Amino acid sequence: MTLLDNLREIVGDAHVLLDGDTSKYDHDWTGNYRATPIAVVRPASTEEVSAVVKACAATKTAIVPVSGNTSLAGGTYAKDAVMISMERLNQIREIRPDARIAIVGAGAVLSSIHDAVDAHNLVFPLTFGAKGSAMIGGALSTNAGGSNVVRYGSTRGLCLGLEVVMPDGQIMNLMSELHKDNSGYDLKDLMIGAEGTLGLITSAVLKLFPKPRAYATAMVAVPDFPDALTLLNDLQAATGGLVEAFEYMDALYVTDHLTMFPKARAPFENRHDINIMVEVGATAPSLADQLPDGTVPVVTLLENTLAQMMEDGRVVDAVVAQNEAQRREMWERREAAGEVMLIRKPMINNDICVPVDKVADFFQRIDARLATLDPDSLHTSVSHLGDGNIHFLMFPTKGDPQHIDLLTETVENVVLSLGGSFSAEHGIGLTKKPSMARRKDKVALAVMRAVKAAIDPDNIMNPGKVLPQTN
Amino acid sequence: MTLLDNLREIVGDAHVLLDGDTSKYDHDWTGNYRATPIAVVRPASTEEVSAVVKACAATKTAIVPVSGNTSLAGGTYAKDAVMISMERLNQIREIRPDARIAIVGAGAVLSSIHDAVDAHNLVFPLTFGAKGSAMIGGALSTNAGGSNVVRYGSTRGLCLGLEVVMPDGQIMNLMSELHKDNSGYDLKDLMIGAEGTLGLITSAVLKLFPKPRAYATAMVAVPDFPDALTLLNDLQAATGGLVEAFEYMDALYVTDHLTMFPKARAPFENRHDINIMVEVGATAPSLADQLPDGTVPVVTLLENTLAQMMEDGRVVDAVVAQNEAQRREMWERREAAGEVMLIRKPMINNDICVPVDKVADFFQRIDARLATLDPDSLHTSVSHLGDGNIHFLMFPTKGDPQHIDLLTETVENVVLSLGGSFSAEHGIGLTKKPSMARRKDKVALAVMRAVKAAIDPDNIMNPGKVLPQTN
Repeated sequence: MTLLDNLREIVGDAHVLLDGDTSKYDHDWTGNYRATPIAVVRPASTEEVSAVVKACAATKTAIVPVSGNTSLAGGTYAKDAVMISMERLNQIREIRPDARIAIVGAGAVLSSIHDAVDAHNLVFPLTFGAKGSAMIGGALSTNAGGSNVVRYGSTRGLCLGLEVVMPDGQIMNLMSELHKDNSGYDLKDLMIGAEGTLGLITSAVLKLFPKPRAYATAMVAVPDFPDALTLLNDLQAATGGLVEAFEYMDALYVTDHLTMFPKARAPFENRHDINIMVEVGATAPSLADQLPDGTVPVVTLLENTLAQMMEDGRVVDAVVAQNEAQRREMWERREAAGEVMLIRKPMINNDICVPVDKVADFFQRIDARLATLDPDSLHTSVSHLGDGNIHFLMFPTKGDPQHIDLLTETVENVVLSLGGSFSAEHGIGLTKKPSMARRKDKVALAVMRAVKAAIDPDNIMNPGKVLPQTN
Repeated sequence: MTLLDNLREIVGDAHVLLDGDTSKYDHDWTGNYRATPIAVVRPASTEEVSAVVKACAATKTAIVPVSGNTSLAGGTYAKDAVMISMERLNQIREIRPDARIAIVGAGAVLSSIHDAVDAHNLVFPLTFGAKGSAMIGGALSTNAGGSNVVRYGSTRGLCLGLEVVMPDGQIMNLMSELHKDNSGYDLKDLMIGAEGTLGLITSAVLKLFPKPRAYATAMVAVPDFPDALTLLNDLQAATGGLVEAFEYMDALYVTDHLTMFPKARAPFENRHDINIMVEVGATAPSLADQLPDGTVPVVTLLENTLAQMMEDGRVVDAVVAQNEAQRREMWERREAAGEVMLIRKPMINNDICVPVDKVADFFQRIDARLATLDPDSLHTSVSHLGDGNIHFLMFPTKGDPQHIDLLTETVENVVLSLGGSFSAEHGIGLTKKPSMARRKDKVALAVMRAVKAAIDPDNIMNPGKVLPQTN
């Protein structure tokens, strides 16, 4: 029996896609990576995933997992490989409001998890622009970040337990629902962020949080980055750490957004260089509940902080959302970044992180370097500024690989000179492998290779991703 | 040159301790494990640790790391091994208040970190009874928990970066100071909680938090466990999740504490079965700052919650700390547990975790089992109730290994029937290896062994700990 026959027997003919039927899967969001897989297999259960992996392992066939396929780093490139799509493992199996957990399949779409837990007055706080397509399996595999990390942490911190199909097809059960569970090596966190190179995540236990009873959301323009940091720190102090999102957009992003979405409104009447979207979420009634005079304390705290900073000349413009529609408008502008970023070619997408107090230094240094290396290039930034995580998009005047490498290395040099990281939240995939080879600690790389060889000795799990071949 | 000569050359004669000089190191806190090591070596820097490990690796000599030696699971038992003490790597190298990080050596004592960051109006929230002896290296190696996990998470969640000396003596630099840094496998979390079996943690980057401007602390007696959970949930709702500690002590613990510390005061005039110490910490001025009438809002929130529950018959007694001295008294009673637990022999120390809503079930089921298996045995519990983490101490009438195994397995059976874990925060060490063999997922155990063999092929790092030989 051929491998394909075997796969058809496991999942049924309708769920082994070949040739033309794989077009949805054969390229990623950026369109930078294209390859036709041997087949796309769509198992309906963990047991079917296990059987599919065993069939592939028996023939040493490469496996590439795919869930929402919203990777920005080429994580699902599948040349000479069987793709295993998690889309049918989309069950939200259990929501336990008292224990504040949800048990979900890897194929559950992020926004469907949001909707399901909202009904219990809870939130699963992982959110980013692609939430309508991205699935939790991919989010876990890349340890996705997004806009609420400043308050709730990355995906890793939002996951209590995992189920993983290992490279030999065995099912590893780490589905703990507990907040304290020290029982040997932390294999859960080893699997999270491994981008499918060590095993396939099939289910997860997720942490839920009380839904804020009130939000205070604003667009704020500030003269310089230190003023933005003051805004963040003053708001954290005033609210006791309730800032949920602190997002930066530059002037070019605001312009590009309006170009792509002509019906949208500009955030301010005037153009500003540093535009911040800030959101505070309050759960305590003393902060969230409306007072007899119609005001809401958490909104008043935000307004007072902004008024004081305006008086000090550290805020130049501010608009506080007056209702949910205005709040949604602010979020939609921010979350359109994944589409707006594709407006120009060639584009270099630098997903980097620097200490929060080094953001101004980053822009000064990189501008000085670009003035020499490619003075006519453009760049735009959308950033999770509260984490120091900058999506620094460069539009160079030349698209040849040498030039792109030169600019990428230049960004890395500036980032590392500031104690930052060349990779914040999008993962390594294929795109950042050269950066891994150049920048990652050599001992750590050797340990990673040893772990990979021990767990996946035949190198069938998402081969060629994450780990560079040589230092 | 012999190994000992080599070690003396690396660290100096005064820091290679032999025979009688090793008595401080040759037993753990419980006194259950005793062994004289080949030598105790006290390196003064990461480079010296690296050189010592290389010397041991060259002769395939076993290495056992030791920091504060407060393990409750036999983690530092060192037969036929060189102990590497981290006590001279005790520097608090840097505190960066704006970035809210501290960079410390593995030998930094927990309370010295607390004191150093307090000067900056910050907290490092990891705390437990042994904080005056325990060092951060050991806390990281066991992923220690303690009393503030309900708000701030375990040690793993409080660490941004690590430096680790690997089994071949190479230094792995994972000293990230960033909140988002996805660059390959999560080796930091693999090393945390590995109890020194994969490498020796020498330095760490720790997360700091704003020091609460006000605490509201109380001892509360409730009729039953569901009432305790209501108290926790109501307080979390009223304060927006500011509960920092939620600790349970049973009546026998209160009695034993007074026996051991006759000058201490009882928490209440009357004896109660379920005594809770609760603490709320507020940083926002609107909750923490004294009002003109002399009250502090967060204290009022606690008092109102308790008053309402008393009216409902769900709180039977409560004492709110009126000043810092009374607050300290409550904490000292709780933190004496490590000493009070040694009051009777034989003792079985079960460090277990169950879902927070299953604590009452646990006690009902285990009491029913003990009534058959050892009706005259005693037990006492001190628990991080907010996490479902119970330190269930049994004092059986017989100390023979078969009986102790029977009771331990009985506890495990009850715990697992409730979806809990046989190991919460003390680690596996030697004590819990049989439980690991019986209870841990078999696939996970096999993956752990593969990782161990890949990283430490000669099995020299804390050999015999954590991983059972067979399933």
